[in-house]
Amino acid sequence: MVVNGNRRIVVIGGTACGPKAAARARRCDPGARITIIEQGAGVSSATCGFPYYVSGVIEKRSSLLVRGPDYFKKVMNIDVLLQTRAQKIDVAARAVEVINLETQKISKLEYDKLVIATGSVPLVPDIEGKHLGGVFTLSRLEDAEAIKNFVTLHKLKKAAIIGAGFIGLEMAEAFATLGIEVTVVEALNWVMPAFFDFEIAAHLEKHLRSNGVKVYCGQRVTGLQGDKQGLVCMVTTTDGSLETQLVLLAVGTRPAVQLARDAGLVIGERGGIVVNEYLQTNDPDIYAGGDCVENIHRLTGKKVLVPLGSTANKHGRVIGTNITGGSDVFPGVLGTGIAKVFEFNVGRVGLTEPEARVSGYTVATSLVLGNEHAAYYPGSKQFLLKLIADKNGGRVLGGQMVGLGDVSKRLDVLATALSFGATVNDLANLDLAYAPPYNAALDPLHHAANTLRNKQSNLAKALTPGEVKTKLERGDDFILLDVRSQAEWKEERIETRQSTLIPLDKLRERLVDLPRDKEIITLCHSSVRAYQAQRILEGAGFTKVKFMDGSLVAWPYQTSKAE
Amino acid sequence: MVVNGNRRIVVIGGTACGPKAAARARRCDPGARITIIEQGAGVSSATCGFPYYVSGVIEKRSSLLVRGPDYFKKVMNIDVLLQTRAQKIDVAARAVEVINLETQKISKLEYDKLVIATGSVPLVPDIEGKHLGGVFTLSRLEDAEAIKNFVTLHKLKKAAIIGAGFIGLEMAEAFATLGIEVTVVEALNWVMPAFFDFEIAAHLEKHLRSNGVKVYCGQRVTGLQGDKQGLVCMVTTTDGSLETQLVLLAVGTRPAVQLARDAGLVIGERGGIVVNEYLQTNDPDIYAGGDCVENIHRLTGKKVLVPLGSTANKHGRVIGTNITGGSDVFPGVLGTGIAKVFEFNVGRVGLTEPEARVSGYTVATSLVLGNEHAAYYPGSKQFLLKLIADKNGGRVLGGQMVGLGDVSKRLDVLATALSFGATVNDLANLDLAYAPPYNAALDPLHHAANTLRNKQSNLAKALTPGEVKTKLERGDDFILLDVRSQAEWKEERIETRQSTLIPLDKLRERLVDLPRDKEIITLCHSSVRAYQAQRILEGAGFTKVKFMDGSLVAWPYQTSKAE
Repeated sequence: MVVNGNRRIVVIGGTACGPKAAARARRCDPGARITIIEQGAGVSSATCGFPYYVSGVIEKRSSLLVRGPDYFKKVMNIDVLLQTRAQKIDVAARAVEVINLETQKISKLEYDKLVIATGSVPLVPDIEGKHLGGVFTLSRLEDAEAIKNFVTLHKLKKAAIIGAGFIGLEMAEAFATLGIEVTVVEALNWVMPAFFDFEIAAHLEKHLRSNGVKVYCGQRVTGLQGDKQGLVCMVTTTDGSLETQLVLLAVGTRPAVQLARDAGLVIGERGGIVVNEYLQTNDPDIYAGGDCVENIHRLTGKKVLVPLGSTANKHGRVIGTNITGGSDVFPGVLGTGIAKVFEFNVGRVGLTEPEARVSGYTVATSLVLGNEHAAYYPGSKQFLLKLIADKNGGRVLGGQMVGLGDVSKRLDVLATALSFGATVNDLANLDLAYAPPYNAALDPLHHAANTLRNKQSNLAKALTPGEVKTKLERGDDFILLDVRSQAEWKEERIETRQSTLIPLDKLRERLVDLPRDKEIITLCHSSVRAYQAQRILEGAGFTKVKFMDGSLVAWPYQTSKAE
Repeated sequence: MVVNGNRRIVVIGGTACGPKAAARARRCDPGARITIIEQGAGVSSATCGFPYYVSGVIEKRSSLLVRGPDYFKKVMNIDVLLQTRAQKIDVAARAVEVINLETQKISKLEYDKLVIATGSVPLVPDIEGKHLGGVFTLSRLEDAEAIKNFVTLHKLKKAAIIGAGFIGLEMAEAFATLGIEVTVVEALNWVMPAFFDFEIAAHLEKHLRSNGVKVYCGQRVTGLQGDKQGLVCMVTTTDGSLETQLVLLAVGTRPAVQLARDAGLVIGERGGIVVNEYLQTNDPDIYAGGDCVENIHRLTGKKVLVPLGSTANKHGRVIGTNITGGSDVFPGVLGTGIAKVFEFNVGRVGLTEPEARVSGYTVATSLVLGNEHAAYYPGSKQFLLKLIADKNGGRVLGGQMVGLGDVSKRLDVLATALSFGATVNDLANLDLAYAPPYNAALDPLHHAANTLRNKQSNLAKALTPGEVKTKLERGDDFILLDVRSQAEWKEERIETRQSTLIPLDKLRERLVDLPRDKEIITLCHSSVRAYQAQRILEGAGFTKVKFMDGSLVAWPYQTSKAE
């Protein structure tokens, strides 16, 4: 460890990566002179908590400011310059020109090592009316405050959210919690389109609707109209228009790289600062981390933008080590993401099915219903799990989960497994913790992996709900064989001319009732019985049998329900 | 896949591994003739749910019987012979001699492949009075029923549990839930001694006491005394005696291997049936799985006994595949275990600290306080986490967790990481799911791994609470420097002549008050500030500074508290 009393470290950005890098640098180098520059009024802020601050779940603003400047000075001996913007990096002179936004005073800070942690800024679509009153983005604490104030001031009744990504849907819940009627408009065909496949997103969308949120997918916003006071009052889309009192633009973010670009640092194709595994830019004395840099995706090896506080914190530690003479590397990300959306937990990791295909994989998937713990122990909630693997070799490529049950545990297990290049065989034999309050003897991930192994060995043959839907719409001639009980059938079923009911425990004795030459697709509640039925039929010599993956639970379309 | 209409499969044991192996065999081979032999009255029973059935948390007996014989016949075309005991395996004739326990009729079942899934039986210590009325073990549904009935019949007020393992402590909660005064007697020095190190077990023990359970460790039971009705009324131990109305013997289990041993199958040093990775015994037509076999520990490569339903289920699938012409292997176990004990969640995976040392590792540990999710999001509960790694190379060897917070997620992440030989570096950079309701930006596992990395790089220097306690008892001359706030100090502190308070934010200005030549051990609530203080002191030139790992949160001994 180099201990150099004169090392000057300047950190631009005081949200997550910056303060972490500074604090780590201090612990590694007691003598360094460390300064954090932050243009806002606070440092070390918990950005991911903003939706909960708006909704009132988090009551105090102070909860969102993890550490104050005073702490940094007294404990860490780090200078924090608030309301101060870095205007220019003079790479040759190794100095940053900063302006105090209150006094407008300009000064220069010399550095031996510079850290750029300028974060990201919300994307604002280039539409008419974007500057109207009542139009917001949410990326800074000031934005959250402004939204809260606007809601109170105007006794808000209606809000429109443009973009059904993580922030969009978290804010949909926040507004609904405040009793506001919420409409979400998403340009692509389903919610969270960049993160989830249709089968999973469809369930999230249902849940949003059941909580009173209006969701319009496949509609692009074309403009915002204002009233006489200059406040937004209407959103027009490619499909029509809707009245509102507030618009939240939540269509994504882009890395804040202007400062870096002006300094001649290399910006990548994805728009983030290019760094090596040490998080070092093309200038060896300048490091960058957090939302403003491009990360390596650990599965594809490609550059990606995944702006997250978790990654920013890890970056900060790596940078803090490296700028004080140590050596640490950041191995990349897996695109792990999770959100609470009303009562649902939704999470994903790795590649979606289309992403896996684009990356050149032959994809196999399974869709299973999971119990968060032993079904016989009270309170077990369920969730739907989609597992994605490489058909050749069985390497796990990704997973998506949605539902009331605890998805966060399975997501983290999967993220861990993906870090090590796990195959479905590996996954199937993980020695996960078992006791009835925590899990069943086999975890949903075990079931999902085993389903994929059954497909690999050609024991299980399945169609996705989407594939079955296509066949129904095309009017294909096949039997949609429901093997649930009479009672379940009465309760809810897929009503088509192809549908037939033979409960599983009657199937062996009623084989004669089924034509051997016809295609049969079996179906039950969660596909456990449907798979069993497929094996029974194949065992009896039927050759054109498949089951519907995830069965009714995963079926995102219309069903007939008992009144 | 071989499909042989004549393949005869006999499965001995109908709890977990047996039924799973049979069902899997059926799915792989539609034509096989499959028979399950079970000596009890039910098949496919959820053994791990028994404590919750006794307590009434699980209300219905039927909830614990996952599948009935009828299901096996109608759906799986598998014959289940209940109340039937396998008496002898005739290896040469490939036949099992069975006796119907109701009719006493003896018959023979010929097999092409035999599966032994005879499970385990409770150890009964060889003490006087073990056959008295009111003395129970708990391994079968009948035991749970008998305990329930006894509790009701005698309007039970007092129960004693011999053995503080998983079942012992789950049953302590069950009895307490029923309003019964519980005493636990454990021969070794702390609760769950085979699974947890003292630092973790001590917290569990506190929690038991705070729930009214009397815990006596380091006392061996020497005998049980009965009353005139032949019902147990007293337990005598090496330290005294205690009155009771019921005794639960929960000192462990041993594999049920008599049948296998008599058949000439190889029994291992640990007392379980020896199987290869295909779960095949030394007779190629006989497979064995579940509690009756020895497993490979994935970290040490050594044979271990870890009787668990989760493992038994995985075994069943592997066996079902292999006896029907397929090929699957079981990679071994990691000793993952979890239990709910009142409000506490306790879990462990891998090696304990002594186990790691015995296995030849130079051990490094960290002890951190974890928040289950972002501290600023409501309802975050905490837990204590001990991480164990190899000092040379940083390979993670094990982890233990205890507390109110969600340990099950971190346990499963750790189990997954251990499966792949993860190092602390790997652990520190796992891309785990982050949103305030689910986690903080860095998971407790990240913190624990980073603490170990700091120790490896000699930034962090720590003593365990146990080591500090030893120094205090020895009367060593050092400063126990508490760096919490005045208010925290007033609330609770370690009261010794070595203790001094200097709040962290005053430390830099009060360095002159501290002698530079004396040993200093810093201390705070969770050790975050204590580590910071260590770095500040070292940065100022102090050379004999360490912090106390886990600090007050991990301190299992007496403290002085404000009234």
